[in-house]
Formats: sequence, C-alpha cells, structure tokens
Amino acid sequence: MTRTVISSATKEVVIGFDQPFVMIGERINPTGRKLLAAQMKEGDYSLVEQDALAQVAAGAQVLDVNAGIPLADEPKILADVIQLVQSITDVPLCIDSSIINALEAGLKVYKGRALVNSTTAEDEVMEQVLPLVKKYGAAVVAISNDETGISEDPDERFEIAKRIVERAADHGIKPEDIVVDPLVMPIGAISTAGRDVFHFIRRLRSELKVNTTCGASNIGFGLPNRHAINNAFLPMLASAGMTSAILNPLHEGLVPAIKAADMLNGVDPHCANWIKTYRQPPAEGQGRQRGRRGRRSA
Amino acid sequence: MTRTVISSATKEVVIGFDQPFVMIGERINPTGRKLLAAQMKEGDYSLVEQDALAQVAAGAQVLDVNAGIPLADEPKILADVIQLVQSITDVPLCIDSSIINALEAGLKVYKGRALVNSTTAEDEVMEQVLPLVKKYGAAVVAISNDETGISEDPDERFEIAKRIVERAADHGIKPEDIVVDPLVMPIGAISTAGRDVFHFIRRLRSELKVNTTCGASNIGFGLPNRHAINNAFLPMLASAGMTSAILNPLHEGLVPAIKAADMLNGVDPHCANWIKTYRQPPAEGQGRQRGRRGRRSA
Repeated sequence: MTRTVISSATKEVVIGFDQPFVMIGERINPTGRKLLAAQMKEGDYSLVEQDALAQVAAGAQVLDVNAGIPLADEPKILADVIQLVQSITDVPLCIDSSIINALEAGLKVYKGRALVNSTTAEDEVMEQVLPLVKKYGAAVVAISNDETGISEDPDERFEIAKRIVERAADHGIKPEDIVVDPLVMPIGAISTAGRDVFHFIRRLRSELKVNTTCGASNIGFGLPNRHAINNAFLPMLASAGMTSAILNPLHEGLVPAIKAADMLNGVDPHCANWIKTYRQPPAEGQGRQRGRRGRRSA
Repeated sequence: MTRTVISSATKEVVIGFDQPFVMIGERINPTGRKLLAAQMKEGDYSLVEQDALAQVAAGAQVLDVNAGIPLADEPKILADVIQLVQSITDVPLCIDSSIINALEAGLKVYKGRALVNSTTAEDEVMEQVLPLVKKYGAAVVAISNDETGISEDPDERFEIAKRIVERAADHGIKPEDIVVDPLVMPIGAISTAGRDVFHFIRRLRSELKVNTTCGASNIGFGLPNRHAINNAFLPMLASAGMTSAILNPLHEGLVPAIKAADMLNGVDPHCANWIKTYRQPPAEGQGRQRGRRGRRSA
C-alpha cells in the first residue's frame, strides 16, 4: 500500500492506494489570470488569500501554489505566498515552479513536508530538482516527458516515469515519495486521450506502485460543457487507480463526484465522510419540529 | 465484441463493448408512483405518454415499460402501454414484468426485437421465461440471484450468472442475447457494494463476455445527495465495462455524465456526439454579431 505523506506544520495528508482521493486546489496560479498576476507582482495577495480560503472550504486537502509571472521576482513572490497561505490555512502545499531558485526559496520557508511540483525526465531538470527534494525531505511530482517531448504512447510514457523513479532512487528518494503525473492530453485533439491515461494509470499503480496526480481539466480543452467532462473524468480516473488530482474544487459538482467515488471505491468507510458532508441539517422553523419538545436531530 | 441487438419497427439499438453506453429510461413504472398507478389502472395513459416523450427527449435510447399494479389486469395494461409507446416513439422497449402472462402479452403486440426484463437463475423462472424469449426472438436481462436469494459475494453471483447463460444456451439463446444485471446493493448498508459490482462487471465482461445492465440508483438508497452518487457511479460503471443501465435520464447531470464517459472510453469517435449535444448555438441578439455581416458561428 503505497503512501505519500506530506504535511504542514500541524496537519498530515496521505496520498495513497487505501486513502480518500486527495484534491489539490489549483487556483493559486497566475497563469491565464491577469488580475491575480498583476496583484501578485505588486505584492498584493488579497486574491491569493481568498483563493486559499475558498478552496479549503470547498474541500481541497492540499493547495498548489504557483507564482510564475513573467519578469517578476518569482522566488520572492513564491516564498511570500507560501508563508501567507501557511499563516491562514493548515493544509500542506504543493510548491509549483519550473524555476529551480523559486522551488528552493519556497522550500526554505515552508513549514512541514511539501510536495514539489515538478520534475520531468529531462536529465538537466532531474539533476537540479531531485537533490533539492532530497535536501528538504520533500515529495515530488514526476511528469512523464523527457528531452524528446511528450510521447503519445502511454507505454512509452510509462518507461519515462520508470526512469524518473530509478533516478530518484539514485538520489535516495523512495518510490512512495514520487507522485507521477501521466500528462492528460485534450481529448478533442487526441481521441484516445481518455483510454490512454486510464491504461497508463493502471500500469503505474500495479507495476510501478506509485501514487499519481494530474491536471485533469486539460482533458476537455476546446470542447463545450467542460465541467461535465471533468465531473465524469475524475470518478473514472479514481476507478483506474489515480490517487490525487490538481483541480478547481469550486467547480460545481466536482467535489461531490470525487467524494462519491471515494465511497464507491471503498475508501470512505461506512460512508461516514459522505454522510457528514451532505446530510441536511434540519431546516429551522420549517415544520421539522413536532410536539412540544421538538425532535432532536443529530 | 459482444453485441446485443434490439429494435423497434424502425430503429435498431446495439448494446455492445464497442458501443456508446445505452440508457434505458426507467420512468414508465408504477412502483412507488401512486398517481401513475391509479391512471394506468383506469386505462388513462397520459402520464405514460409524457414520461415516454420526456425520456426520449432527454437521451434515453430504450424505454423500460412496467405495468406492475396490484389487483390490475397487468397483461392487458402492459400490452396497451407497449402499443401506445410504440405509436409515439421509435425507440426499442424493455418489457418488464415478473408475470409470465404479462411478458407474453407484451411480446405478442411488440413490433421489433424486445429486451425482456427479466429472468433470474431460479429454475421455475428460467423454464418459463427462456422459452418465451426464444419463441419471440428477443433478448433477455438475467438477474444474478437464485432460489437461495442474493449472495453478497460477487464471485458467487458470477457463477449464478454463468448458470443462466448455460441454461439459455440449452434453449437456443446465444450469450450475446443475454444482458446480465449484477444487482446493485445499497452502499449505505453494504460498504463494499461499489467495489463488488465493479469487480463483478469486469468478470462478466472479460470471462463471460456478456453485456450488462443495472438499476443504478439503488446504490445510494437511504443516503443524502443521491443524484450526485449516481452521477459519479455511472461513469465508474462504464469504466468497469458496463454497457447499459436502467435509469432516469431526467435527473440533472446524469446524461452528460454518461455521454462524457462514452467520449472518455473512446466510443464517441471525434467527440462527435458530445459536440453535437452540447455545442452552444449562437445566442440571438446577444452581442454575438460583430460588424455588419455578423460572425458566422459553426
């Protein structure tokens, strides 16, 4: 039973085969969000704060934090944002940057055991990121592409993921501290994108025995009714054995879809989490009280 | 590639491993619907008509028709309803009764190749239903329970399903004309109900090579937010290899969940059905027209 343990100063989250699916909130990311990018660049983190609190309230167990703004001081901004988010929430963070100095700046100030997002199988990237992951005792997202780009063949991508796991071992990082991202392709462009990723995830789980994550919403790129695609895709990813995803927990229907999948996959014992989340409280003054003493509702 | 072909007078529907998931509308069923039962008993089929048209409009490719009303003339009502529904829709029907005379009355008036719902593995039931299925050249739903009741062990239920397939062969009915219902248990009562049915469906598909169907909504019996459970369960059933289900296509989110699963499972080539269904038509007079000639939207 593979378990990737990450933590904040006070809270541990386990990504694992026998665990509820871990939702990693994707919102704190200026890519494609002009206002957020402009604010972050000016050191104004009011939107970051809102996004952090709203995602945790919606059910995110981990938050991804990205500060990739062109021409900005990414290491400083990323460190600032991490400190801010850790001061107002207790969830572990996923430190997301393609710049090694930013990752290190983030790891330096981070309290707990972070998830580093990410390394690829490119030699240069692995040789920068993996020593950092080891130095800070973090876990790491491994993206299954290399110098040759992204293969369309999921079995080739499996070999690439395997190579990262092997290289990580050379650096003293265990397989259970690697969360493989199979790279979801847009199904509007590649008709087999769904089946490919399900097949790949099943192999990652049964053969490489690693946890998995992905940016799920890419599947519906360019198609209408994208939310509905995501809401079906996530339970299907969970069926294939995926154990976490980077997503927007504020999208309608997505969190219930994942919590239902947990229940159906047997990782919500006695449906306890489902019932706790969705049980209707008795409506006040709406005829629920009968008799003089009323009815005590749990 | 197993294919169960059913038809109306003018339309064929294929339930199959390489086909879009077949949604069988469940609404024409008086069980638990007092008004519908009262109307049907009096020979008033106005609600039946509404239910038939609404379900087809919502995306049902097949309609289940049940006339199980206590103390009513079920054979006559079932035959009436079948003739009515066939006169106003062109979808094939699933003739649903536990009374052999009603099944036969229905089959007599039915135009096309019906799906008979259902036989169990009980000797007496098989020996009544299977000859009828053969006589009318129909397909049949096989429910995996026998005289001893419903086993909680999906592998025992697999053996029971296998027994029905073997008995059907004795009557000259091919495996591809049998659609096995694995019997979905309420997960609120049996925590393993989800995993059990996924496991069972995978075995039915890979070993017995038969199509499958189920009354999916039973999974959430007694739990809050049942629609959300169904909306996740159906894509997961499709992931496990289920090829049809008896369900309410009017429930919000359910049809999109199934159509998305088709696309993700690679049985909606080029996402054509998805795009056709969910593409937004250009809104009239809502600023979509720019410049004198307007913008031509696809």
